[in-house]
Amino acid sequence: MAKVAVIMGSKSDFDAVKPAIDVLKSFGVETDVRVISAHRTPDLAHDYAKSAEQNGIEAFICAAGKAAHLGGVIAAYTPLPVIGLPIKSSTMDGLDSLLSMVQMPSGIPVACVAINGAQNAGLLAVQMLSLKYPELLEKMKNYKVEMAQKISRDDAQLQKELN
Amino acid sequence: MAKVAVIMGSKSDFDAVKPAIDVLKSFGVETDVRVISAHRTPDLAHDYAKSAEQNGIEAFICAAGKAAHLGGVIAAYTPLPVIGLPIKSSTMDGLDSLLSMVQMPSGIPVACVAINGAQNAGLLAVQMLSLKYPELLEKMKNYKVEMAQKISRDDAQLQKELN
Amino acid sequence: MAKVAVIMGSKSDFDAVKPAIDVLKSFGVETDVRVISAHRTPDLAHDYAKSAEQNGIEAFICAAGKAAHLGGVIAAYTPLPVIGLPIKSSTMDGLDSLLSMVQMPSGIPVACVAINGAQNAGLLAVQMLSLKYPELLEKMKNYKVEMAQKISRDDAQLQKELN
Amino acid sequence: MAKVAVIMGSKSDFDAVKPAIDVLKSFGVETDVRVISAHRTPDLAHDYAKSAEQNGIEAFICAAGKAAHLGGVIAAYTPLPVIGLPIKSSTMDGLDSLLSMVQMPSGIPVACVAINGAQNAGLLAVQMLSLKYPELLEKMKNYKVEMAQKISRDDAQLQKELN
Amino acid sequence: MAKVAVIMGSKSDFDAVKPAIDVLKSFGVETDVRVISAHRTPDLAHDYAKSAEQNGIEAFICAAGKAAHLGGVIAAYTPLPVIGLPIKSSTMDGLDSLLSMVQMPSGIPVACVAINGAQNAGLLAVQMLSLKYPELLEKMKNYKVEMAQKISRDDAQLQKELN
Amino acid sequence: MAKVAVIMGSKSDFDAVKPAIDVLKSFGVETDVRVISAHRTPDLAHDYAKSAEQNGIEAFICAAGKAAHLGGVIAAYTPLPVIGLPIKSSTMDGLDSLLSMVQMPSGIPVACVAINGAQNAGLLAVQMLSLKYPELLEKMKNYKVEMAQKISRDDAQLQKELN
Amino acid sequence: MAKVAVIMGSKSDFDAVKPAIDVLKSFGVETDVRVISAHRTPDLAHDYAKSAEQNGIEAFICAAGKAAHLGGVIAAYTPLPVIGLPIKSSTMDGLDSLLSMVQMPSGIPVACVAINGAQNAGLLAVQMLSLKYPELLEKMKNYKVEMAQKISRDDAQLQKELN
Amino acid sequence: MAKVAVIMGSKSDFDAVKPAIDVLKSFGVETDVRVISAHRTPDLAHDYAKSAEQNGIEAFICAAGKAAHLGGVIAAYTPLPVIGLPIKSSTMDGLDSLLSMVQMPSGIPVACVAINGAQNAGLLAVQMLSLKYPELLEKMKNYKVEMAQKISRDDAQLQKELN
Repeated sequence: MAKVAVIMGSKSDFDAVKPAIDVLKSFGVETDVRVISAHRTPDLAHDYAKSAEQNGIEAFICAAGKAAHLGGVIAAYTPLPVIGLPIKSSTMDGLDSLLSMVQMPSGIPVACVAINGAQNAGLLAVQMLSLKYPELLEKMKNYKVEMAQKISRDDAQLQKELN
Repeated sequence: MAKVAVIMGSKSDFDAVKPAIDVLKSFGVETDVRVISAHRTPDLAHDYAKSAEQNGIEAFICAAGKAAHLGGVIAAYTPLPVIGLPIKSSTMDGLDSLLSMVQMPSGIPVACVAINGAQNAGLLAVQMLSLKYPELLEKMKNYKVEMAQKISRDDAQLQKELN
Repeated sequence: MAKVAVIMGSKSDFDAVKPAIDVLKSFGVETDVRVISAHRTPDLAHDYAKSAEQNGIEAFICAAGKAAHLGGVIAAYTPLPVIGLPIKSSTMDGLDSLLSMVQMPSGIPVACVAINGAQNAGLLAVQMLSLKYPELLEKMKNYKVEMAQKISRDDAQLQKELN
Repeated sequence: MAKVAVIMGSKSDFDAVKPAIDVLKSFGVETDVRVISAHRTPDLAHDYAKSAEQNGIEAFICAAGKAAHLGGVIAAYTPLPVIGLPIKSSTMDGLDSLLSMVQMPSGIPVACVAINGAQNAGLLAVQMLSLKYPELLEKMKNYKVEMAQKISRDDAQLQKELN
Repeated sequence: MAKVAVIMGSKSDFDAVKPAIDVLKSFGVETDVRVISAHRTPDLAHDYAKSAEQNGIEAFICAAGKAAHLGGVIAAYTPLPVIGLPIKSSTMDGLDSLLSMVQMPSGIPVACVAINGAQNAGLLAVQMLSLKYPELLEKMKNYKVEMAQKISRDDAQLQKELN
Repeated sequence: MAKVAVIMGSKSDFDAVKPAIDVLKSFGVETDVRVISAHRTPDLAHDYAKSAEQNGIEAFICAAGKAAHLGGVIAAYTPLPVIGLPIKSSTMDGLDSLLSMVQMPSGIPVACVAINGAQNAGLLAVQMLSLKYPELLEKMKNYKVEMAQKISRDDAQLQKELN
Repeated sequence: MAKVAVIMGSKSDFDAVKPAIDVLKSFGVETDVRVISAHRTPDLAHDYAKSAEQNGIEAFICAAGKAAHLGGVIAAYTPLPVIGLPIKSSTMDGLDSLLSMVQMPSGIPVACVAINGAQNAGLLAVQMLSLKYPELLEKMKNYKVEMAQKISRDDAQLQKELN
Repeated sequence: MAKVAVIMGSKSDFDAVKPAIDVLKSFGVETDVRVISAHRTPDLAHDYAKSAEQNGIEAFICAAGKAAHLGGVIAAYTPLPVIGLPIKSSTMDGLDSLLSMVQMPSGIPVACVAINGAQNAGLLAVQMLSLKYPELLEKMKNYKVEMAQKISRDDAQLQKELN
């Protein structure tokens, strides 16, 4: 089945990235989770991106903080869609990561989600893959229904608590 | 072939959106270009998003400025991938549009591109669709080659001008 | 008597919203406190906003964080005044919520208060209602007198502490 | 009928404020348009706000730029609802005006609209007054219908232009 | 001797203001420390500012957070110099307070110091007063010498620690 | 009579600084207007600041853009009060100049006015000097009266234009 | 003699980069001026950076706008010092370029200069090279003297104009 | 061997600066670590910078927070390269320090690294020195190899943990 590369620039980003992996697993999407730094292991980034298509990768999630070039660097080497997940670091509250990812120059898009928005990075990957895999589209519809039900239960619960 | 809905919140956004349409056309992707406002025509937004899948739409590009809710509102109603294109308006230099689009809460992703990054919005849609349509993947590879050649020609031209 | 809908996008916002409810109660204004997400339960948002007037709602307070569309989505569906209460989330210090709420495009206003300014959201609702309900205007005048007296007591207390 | 005070901190703000006046007129709401500076004519601001209620004023729109205190200063003196209209000045793109208006401390709300959002300031005043004046509520409903029709015509026009 | 009014918008600001009072005391400058809110006790602000000169006040330090109007409101009523001390509140990291204080419109200056820069607010008041009171100028010269000596001792201490 | 040093970091700042000089002249305050760069002529800055007191200077206005260190550098060398006037340059809209001036570390205050707020820089200097020179205090009172009258005339004029 | 690679991400950046080239020429430093995009020609960027040392390059100036990864990408491949020159683009006033360049993660520094600060990029390269080439250090000392003289002439000229 | 001056504006910055010192030591570069404040000990800053070259200093690292002038002040007095290390202080998240350092006016560059990026400040100094000292260039190449190996080990470790 579908396979998504989930790459983080530093192993210390793992906790912030994990919800993306969990989402992908819950939808039955395979992942290849890797620590690859655009700056510290540029050759690895190059090789991984270049060979991704033949290794069955269909989309990327690239998580990085600060001057977050990982998404752009991977996108430079692959025609596949790349999702950028900006990670909040110890200064600038994630604004640096966000702008470094989302403000990509013309020609090389990165599909950016919210700062520390790993869950949405996973869901966005599923939505992309669902164009090809109809069963993912069905699962996504169910996911949205369950999400709405969860809010409705919260709403009912709050009514009960307040009355 | 593939069909992408390109929605803008106001007809005045058309010039900023046009490069997305041009890219999609150049890749042979059909478009449905519409003016639908999340705030001024919410029922139309609802109806359009709800019926998109059965109308053959496979992805959305939603362009809006200021408190740019269009992407989120469409994404709320559809399981299909939604690309957010933040438009710079007369104040705040597009930061309001960017944050309104990219900072989506968990559960409902919007794939955000750069402020006024219409060309990339189109390319990202093509990349998503290329998961399903292999001919688009080939075209995207060619596109990247041509883009590199264009830069190389610029480089050669500059060398010539400077010497 | 007057009734205000207090809607939050997530039950986790309740603590940040509570001061608004407390203010409304202290002025004797009825509330309908609900968890309704613009993105996760868009149909509920639509139905609630559409039927609000006939259910006796006279104003809305909409609290949400990040890409805070709730105020705009409700305002799209109702002619009643909508107060936006931007909630600070874990990144961006509330700037995303603020801009997503206050920068509404022409035609659909949202009356925005400060980030996490729930008390003021409640007071603003009272002020709106006081146009119709003169007893609320009298209460508001008293509220302002008591507030001034509180500051004067603080001032006197500080004089005492410092001398 | 209803009367709204439209106050600007400087006569040079008039062009940015005018859409608010136009909206109020088009809804048949009377206005008292004044140049009153919180800093340069503080006594006038005091007197005007204090006597507003007995002069038939039911709501305020306060427009100012830079360190925009006008809304807060008026709100300090009146129990009536005050709408803040932040005006973009020659530096800071309106962010200073916005934060000076919207970030009001607890106890004294100002209902802030978008930077240079005069039209919405007018509409918000109408919505507040419509709680008391049912004919304004009806007009507001019509306004929303016409606004939607305008967008639909733009949409139809764009379809025509593109085909 | 010289007397400086130190006004804070809320008693909760006292800890952030105290270094200003301490500095003034250490220079032998009298203070009148008050809790006066521009928004909650506008009449008190008016009366205090208007009578300050005849009560022997020669300069003001006004400390406030969020939409920090206190400095501007006092400056509107007095020809004496007003120092603005922006206080960091729970959101926006003090940027709102800073812009609300420093971006005063033409005609009514507020002398702004750093966010939470109470010590500098006190020193600036001393510098202003030293124009009139030569003994303060001498003390300020000594203060600068001692400050330099303190840094030099730190430097020597660090050399020792590192070797 | 009183003398104020008006220093700009670059001759190209002259137009932005001129309103400060005009204000000082109109109050009868002498000025010494100089181009001295903290970075390009540091020795001159040192010499000028060190000898200012004996040359009869009683206060400084320091105007600079970008990383605007001029105010801090002068303040480091003199016990006299230093007013910082942040100049907007071609990028960052003056935010860099503002923060570089206003965020001075403890011990060395700079009295910051608004970005490009030259008129207020001049008025603030007058207010400081008025502590020593009573005739300046009287002039400042008149200035405030005239300013209020100007606004009142604008107000009357607008009433006339609208009716 | 010394050789500096001056790389820009797009030929359209040339005008913003030219002052760096002019400075280098005026100091007698050789340049290799190239258009190489981190995203559009990643292989070229890789090859150029990898072979730079053996081609006699001793330092890099990398100019780019928006999500400006060029400096980081080059720095990933070379042990030589890399100067980042953030270019202001049509939105965000250069803040995106600045943060994308300056906020580099640990291990791979980029020496960032001001937004559009091409002249300083050139001077910084000269300063780096002057560690090895003593004649450049002498030229830099002269440059600083001439710069100070230029300011002094401006100062004298202004005195003349004002008197 | 090579010697780098590591200057901090306050002894309290030492912990944030220490990684720079550690890096320099690990490369065998001598350091002169000093507490020198641009504002509180301007004469010391002047004397230190002026005599640095003859004391064998070849580059500077200047660390400071808030209105961080230290880098600019040192750079004004020396032709040697100056690295600016912006320190995050208790407000503004380091943005004030960053802009105060990086936005240097033309003529006096400061080579700015990330907020609290002490390790990179040290590495950048090594890279500058490596132009003159070939053994540092070799060490830097090794450093980059080790850094890549560290990431690869992290990657392998993560693979193991996840499988």
